[in-house]
Parts: sequence; C-alpha cells; structure tokens
Amino acid sequence: MTNIAVLLSGCGVFDGSEIHESVLTLLSLSKAGADYQCFAPDMEQLHVVNHLTGQVESGAVRNVLVESARIARGEIKDCNSLDVTQFDALILPGGFGAAKNLCNFATNGSECSINPDVAAFISEFVLSKKPVGFICISPVMIPLLYGHGAKGTIGTDRDTAEAFTLMGGEHQNANVHEIVVDEVNKVVSTPAYMLAGSIAEAHSGIEKLVAKVLAMA
Amino acid sequence: MTNIAVLLSGCGVFDGSEIHESVLTLLSLSKAGADYQCFAPDMEQLHVVNHLTGQVESGAVRNVLVESARIARGEIKDCNSLDVTQFDALILPGGFGAAKNLCNFATNGSECSINPDVAAFISEFVLSKKPVGFICISPVMIPLLYGHGAKGTIGTDRDTAEAFTLMGGEHQNANVHEIVVDEVNKVVSTPAYMLAGSIAEAHSGIEKLVAKVLAMA
Repeated sequence: MTNIAVLLSGCGVFDGSEIHESVLTLLSLSKAGADYQCFAPDMEQLHVVNHLTGQVESGAVRNVLVESARIARGEIKDCNSLDVTQFDALILPGGFGAAKNLCNFATNGSECSINPDVAAFISEFVLSKKPVGFICISPVMIPLLYGHGAKGTIGTDRDTAEAFTLMGGEHQNANVHEIVVDEVNKVVSTPAYMLAGSIAEAHSGIEKLVAKVLAMA
Repeated sequence: MTNIAVLLSGCGVFDGSEIHESVLTLLSLSKAGADYQCFAPDMEQLHVVNHLTGQVESGAVRNVLVESARIARGEIKDCNSLDVTQFDALILPGGFGAAKNLCNFATNGSECSINPDVAAFISEFVLSKKPVGFICISPVMIPLLYGHGAKGTIGTDRDTAEAFTLMGGEHQNANVHEIVVDEVNKVVSTPAYMLAGSIAEAHSGIEKLVAKVLAMA
C-alpha cells in the first residue's frame, strides 16, 4: 500500500497549518486508498495568534508537534523520527505555520532559511528522489530544497512570486484549480488558499495535487 | 442561496470539535453550493487536552469561540449573536467538545444538560422547525432538545445508545455510511468518528447528512 508522509506546522491558518488544506490532503489520500502518517517538528511556534481577533497573544507559547496532533487526531510523529524507506512521498499543506515555523519566509522573505530539523526531514525525500507536494505558501521552500530552476507556484501573488524567483526558483502562475509539476525534481505545487475563495475551490487543486503525487510515487 | 449555521465546540477531537468532521461538513456544504456561517459559544473549555499525549494540561485555559475560530479561518460568530431568520438549517459536528463544552454528557451521562447559551441557540432552529444535523457524539443532545421519541443515532455503542434511550430518545443503530432521519422533527444524524476507521469513511456519512439537511431546508 502506498504510504505518504504529511508534514504539519501547527493547527490554524495564522500560526500553524491551514486546517482545511491539511484535512483535504488527508481526505484525498484516504479516498485514493493511500495510507498516511502525519509528522511535525517538536519546537515552539513562532507565536500564537488569536484566530478570532487576528492578534498575537502576548506571552502565549504552543508547541508545533503538540498542536499539529489536533489535526492528526493524536496519530503524529516527531519529524526527527522519520524512516524514509517507509514512505513513497511527502506532502506539505500550507498556512502561515509553513512560513513561520517550518521556515522563516514570513519574517525574512527571499533571505529565508528552513528550520534545520525540517530541512533534514524534507531532504530525505529529495535525496531519495521521492515526490513531494507543496500546497499554498509552502512552495517558497522549493528553491531552497531543489536549487536553481526548480519549478513551482504560489498562485499569482506578485511579491511572493518575485521572492521565489530571487531564491533561484522558476515560478509559474497558476489558478486555484491548477497544479504545477516539475517532472525532473518530482515536485508538485498548487495555490489552494493563496487564491481559494471557498473550501470547494481549495479542494479542487489539492485533489489534483494528491493524485499527481500518488501517480509519481 | 441556502445558508447553513455550523456550531463548533473548540478545535481538536479530545477537547473541542472533531476537526475532520467540521472541515468535511464545510466541504460538503461548499460543494453543494450552500453558504455557511460558523458559530461557537464564548466560554472556557472544560479543559485542554494535549493531543500528542492524550493528557489534560493542568492549569491550561482556552476559550471555545477563540479556538473554534481556527477551524473557521477567523470567520466565526458568538452563538449569542444569532439571527435565525438568516439561516435555513443548523449542523453540529462531533468531537468531545460537543459532550464537554456544548453539553456535559461526557461527565454526567444521561443526567446531562446543555449549556444555556447553546440550548438557546439550537432551540431557535428547533422552534422555527428548521432542520438540524447532528454528527458523531452530538446526537446525545437530541432527546433533550426534541423530547420523547425523537430519533437519532450515535452508531452502535451500547452504553451511549442506552443513555440516549434513558433520556427519552429512540435510538437506531447505524453504520458509518448511514444517516438516521427523524422526518417529524427534521433531525438527521450520522455516526462519523463514533465508528469511522478512516477519514474517507467519516466523509461518506457526513456527505449524506449534509445532502439530507439541505434537501429538508
């Protein structure tokens, strides 16, 4: 049975994994008959955002792995415990957690770097030439992971696309229903909530991304 | 356009709304072309559970409305602000939050009562004869809301079914793919993660529940 790793970054669009994108990823995998295992880094979140007010909660501390466990219904592993031979591919949902916790794109833009534990985790898939799917804002890590000329999309946002290009990536605009495929690197990306006006729209692109990742696995 | 209220109870299966069930409800509504608005009560959660360890976090305090906002991407309202004339139906996802925050079934069993703000909120739909869908454990509130002989399912768990009957409800066993419909009261229920072995299974029943609620609305 195909077994897919899913890397989460917390639980909530403004400080963690985008919840809809994460659940839609798991749904598409489950409906396709694939097995999955969620992972997250055992680290403090950059911050905690009150999702009702949009304000940062001063002094609040939450752990990325512990909060991600909410999306995974408790079935989650520390990304340091990966045995890549057990998995056929990896998928990263979006949400600000991908740009605040997994890497620091939200604060450093094109000068960003990936958290060392996270970089080591994803690199195991890259080095073993297993397909990786990047959703929403998480494709900003593609140039850092695959080097010059790697293809990906963050939708149509000009500033983010420019940063993607500055980091050495080859950005391709895409709408919410589309995926962008880098066949050489086995990388698939889709904009989801970078552009989605509804959860049904986000579902449309994520379903295609999951199908393509599974086809390449 | 059909507009459906969705009542959340936090964010995470062990102390709030079951995240998959909540997102799958929103997905089914969105794909059916219905509009939705999430609501939650502005109150402290019964407790906070670390979803990695399953342990209650001693001293931790979280607010049901604030945490539910994570699932709703910030687009959520206090259940005290309901104008029922704006809505055609109501759906309640499950998760322990439904039995710990919305009512106290988790601690009081068949002697449980519904939080007064929550009872007032749901009663507006009951009194205006608008359909209500109950998912997973949330159907334990059906007998309290609709009185003697109201039909519903919590799946096949004997103890919970017995409590449902003790409270005056007419329990019907159902599998994860089925819905139980009380045509008189316009009540629909489905077991979801009371029985689901996968998110695809949970989706199957929830999709049917949403379709039936929309058909009755």
